Amino acid sequence: MNSELVLSLDAMGGDHAPGIVVDGAAAFLKGRRRKVRLLFHGDEARLRPLINAHPDLVAVSEIFHTDSEVDMSAKPSDAVRRSRGSSMWNAVHAIRDGKAQVAVSAGNTGALMAISKVCLRMKAGVHRPAIAASWPVPKGFCTVLDVGANVQCTPAQLVEFAIMGEAFHRAVHRNKRPTVGMLNVGQEELKGNDIVRDADALLRAAGLDMDYRGYVEGNDISVGTTDVVVTDGFTGNIALKTAEGTARLVAGWVREALTSSVIARLAAVLLQLGALDQLRAKMDPNNVNGGVFLGLNGVVVKSHGGTNAAGFATALRIALELADSAFLNEIEQNLALLEAAQERELAATATQGQEVTA
Amino acid sequence: MNSELVLSLDAMGGDHAPGIVVDGAAAFLKGRRRKVRLLFHGDEARLRPLINAHPDLVAVSEIFHTDSEVDMSAKPSDAVRRSRGSSMWNAVHAIRDGKAQVAVSAGNTGALMAISKVCLRMKAGVHRPAIAASWPVPKGFCTVLDVGANVQCTPAQLVEFAIMGEAFHRAVHRNKRPTVGMLNVGQEELKGNDIVRDADALLRAAGLDMDYRGYVEGNDISVGTTDVVVTDGFTGNIALKTAEGTARLVAGWVREALTSSVIARLAAVLLQLGALDQLRAKMDPNNVNGGVFLGLNGVVVKSHGGTNAAGFATALRIALELADSAFLNEIEQNLALLEAAQERELAATATQGQEVTA
Repeated sequence: MNSELVLSLDAMGGDHAPGIVVDGAAAFLKGRRRKVRLLFHGDEARLRPLINAHPDLVAVSEIFHTDSEVDMSAKPSDAVRRSRGSSMWNAVHAIRDGKAQVAVSAGNTGALMAISKVCLRMKAGVHRPAIAASWPVPKGFCTVLDVGANVQCTPAQLVEFAIMGEAFHRAVHRNKRPTVGMLNVGQEELKGNDIVRDADALLRAAGLDMDYRGYVEGNDISVGTTDVVVTDGFTGNIALKTAEGTARLVAGWVREALTSSVIARLAAVLLQLGALDQLRAKMDPNNVNGGVFLGLNGVVVKSHGGTNAAGFATALRIALELADSAFLNEIEQNLALLEAAQERELAATATQGQEVTA
Repeated sequence: MNSELVLSLDAMGGDHAPGIVVDGAAAFLKGRRRKVRLLFHGDEARLRPLINAHPDLVAVSEIFHTDSEVDMSAKPSDAVRRSRGSSMWNAVHAIRDGKAQVAVSAGNTGALMAISKVCLRMKAGVHRPAIAASWPVPKGFCTVLDVGANVQCTPAQLVEFAIMGEAFHRAVHRNKRPTVGMLNVGQEELKGNDIVRDADALLRAAGLDMDYRGYVEGNDISVGTTDVVVTDGFTGNIALKTAEGTARLVAGWVREALTSSVIARLAAVLLQLGALDQLRAKMDPNNVNGGVFLGLNGVVVKSHGGTNAAGFATALRIALELADSAFLNEIEQNLALLEAAQERELAATATQGQEVTA
C-alpha cells in the first residue's frame, strides 16, 4: 500500500474538460496521504496553466501531450479505428504499458468501453465487461450492474456480474460481506424470464463464496435490501435513468414547494442554514459519480460526461480504492468456481444424453 | 353519456378491504353528477353496515353476496381454477354478463389478470393484454405500459401496446393528441435489442394515426418527454418499482432534513401551512392509483393492494372515464392498420423469397 499509485487521466474527456479534470484532481489530492502520481493526457498548452494554479498538483503531475480527442458523439466502432493517439486512447494504454494502475475519463462511454476492451482485453473467465453504478440508499450505497454495456446477457454472464459486483462493492464501500440480489419482477405468474431464472439456479449451484439472497425487485434498489443488484445492461440502464429522472422530479417539487409563497420562502431561508445542505449533498449525483468497467485486465472508471470537479474527484477516489483492494484476486477465485460449476453441468448433460441414447 | 354507468367492485380485494372499498366508493360519489350504479361483490354481513354509514351510497349500491375471496398470495393458475364464485371472479363476470361496464379490484394482480383473460378474452387483433400505469410528471401524467403482464414481448405486441396506451391516455388524461415513445437505452453501440428496433420499424411502417416520436430513455419518463412510453412488462415493472423506491427514498430524506434541528423543525412548521401539503399531494401514490388492463373485451382496473379509500376512489374515477370514452373504438381502428402493415410485410417477404428461388 505504500508504493506509489499511478492514475492515468483523460484530461480532455467530458463536457467541461479540461478544467474540471484538473480541478477535480486537485480536490482529490487535498488532505490525501496515500502517495499518488497523476498522468494527464491532453493538450499541454491548455493543461499547463490549469495545473500550475494548484501547487500541490504540480509536484505529482506529468503531462502527456496529444492534439486529438474523442468526440462525445463518436460511434464506438469508429472511435476504436480513429482514436489512436487521442487523450482517451493514451489514458487507457498507459495501463497496458504498465505506466499506470488505473484510468479515469469523463468522455464518451461507448468509445471508452470499446477502447478499453480492445486495449486491455477481458479477464480470463469473463465473457464481457460490465458497467457498475453506485446508487445512494438510506445507509450507504447499492452497487447495480450492468447499467449499459450489455443489452442481452446469458445466465452465465449474469453470474459473472454477481461475482464482479460483489468484489467491487467490498473494495469500494468497505463492506466485508456484501449481500447480492438478482433483479426480477414480482408477480407470481411471471417470476422473471428464463435467463433470470437460469442465472439464479446457476448462481446457487456454483458454490461461490457469496451471500446470495435470491430475487429482488425494482423498489429494493433504493431501499438497500441487498448491497449488490445484478441485471442485464438494458434493464439496468433504464432503471438507473428512471431513478435519476424521478429524483430530479421530486427535487423539483421540493424546490417548488419552498418557493410557492412568502411563508414557504421564509421556511426555505431557515432551512438553508442547515438541513437543506445535507439534503442537497445526498441528492448530488457528483457524490456517487463513476461507473466502473468491471471484467477487464485493469481498472477503468467512467465519470459522468457532465460532471463537475467534485464529481471527477469522486471518480478518482473510487479508482484509487479499487486499485488498492484485493478485488481482482477475489473475482478470479469465484470465476474459477463458476467455471467448475458449468463444467459439472455440461458433464451431467452429456451423461444424460448417453443414457437416453443407450 | 346520460345513461347509467354500472361499476362492478371486488369488495373483498386488497389489504384493507372491505373498508377502503366502501369508503373509496363513497368518496368517488361525492359531488359527482354522472349517473352511476355500484355492484359490491363480497360478504354481505360485513358490507351492509359499512355501506349504510354513507346514505348517498345506499341509494346507488347493490350487494352480491359471496363467502369466498381470492387469496392475495394465490398463484394465478390456481386462482382461475379455484376462484369460481369468489368476489373477484363475480366482479369480472358482471362485465361479461352485461350487468356492468367496468370492474375494479384491489386484489391479487396475477389472479385478476388471469381471471380477466379467461372471462373477457382478448380483443380481436390483440395478442396479450397489458397493464398501463399513470406516472406523475411536471405537467400531468405519463402513461407507461406494459408494467407487468408480459415478461417477453414480440415487436408486434409492443406496437399493440403503443396503440392501446395512446388511446388510454387520450381517454383518461384528456389529451387529444398524445405523443408516444419507445423505451430504449441511449448508448450508440447498443441502440436497444432487436425486438425494440423491430418494433420501432413496424410502428413507423404501419401508418397509424399516432404522433410517434421514436426512442426515449429512462429519465424521459419523469421528464414527460412523451405522453406515452411503451416497453415490455419486465422492464416496465422494474422501472415503475425503481421510480417508486426512489421517490420514497427522496421523500425520506426531505422528512429527515425537516426534523434534523430546531431551525429545520421551525421551517417545517411554516411549510406545513401550505407548500408541504401540495408536495405531499403530488407524491401521494393514491392520486395515480389504478393499473388498467388494456386489450380485453371490457375495462378492468387494478387498484394497489395496499391502497386507502382515496386511492380506491381514484381507481373508480379512472374506470369511469375509460367507460365514458371512445377509446375501445380508437384502438380497433389502429389495430386494423397494424394488421394491414403486417400483411404487407409478409407479402413482401414472400415475394423476396420467390425472387431468390427464381
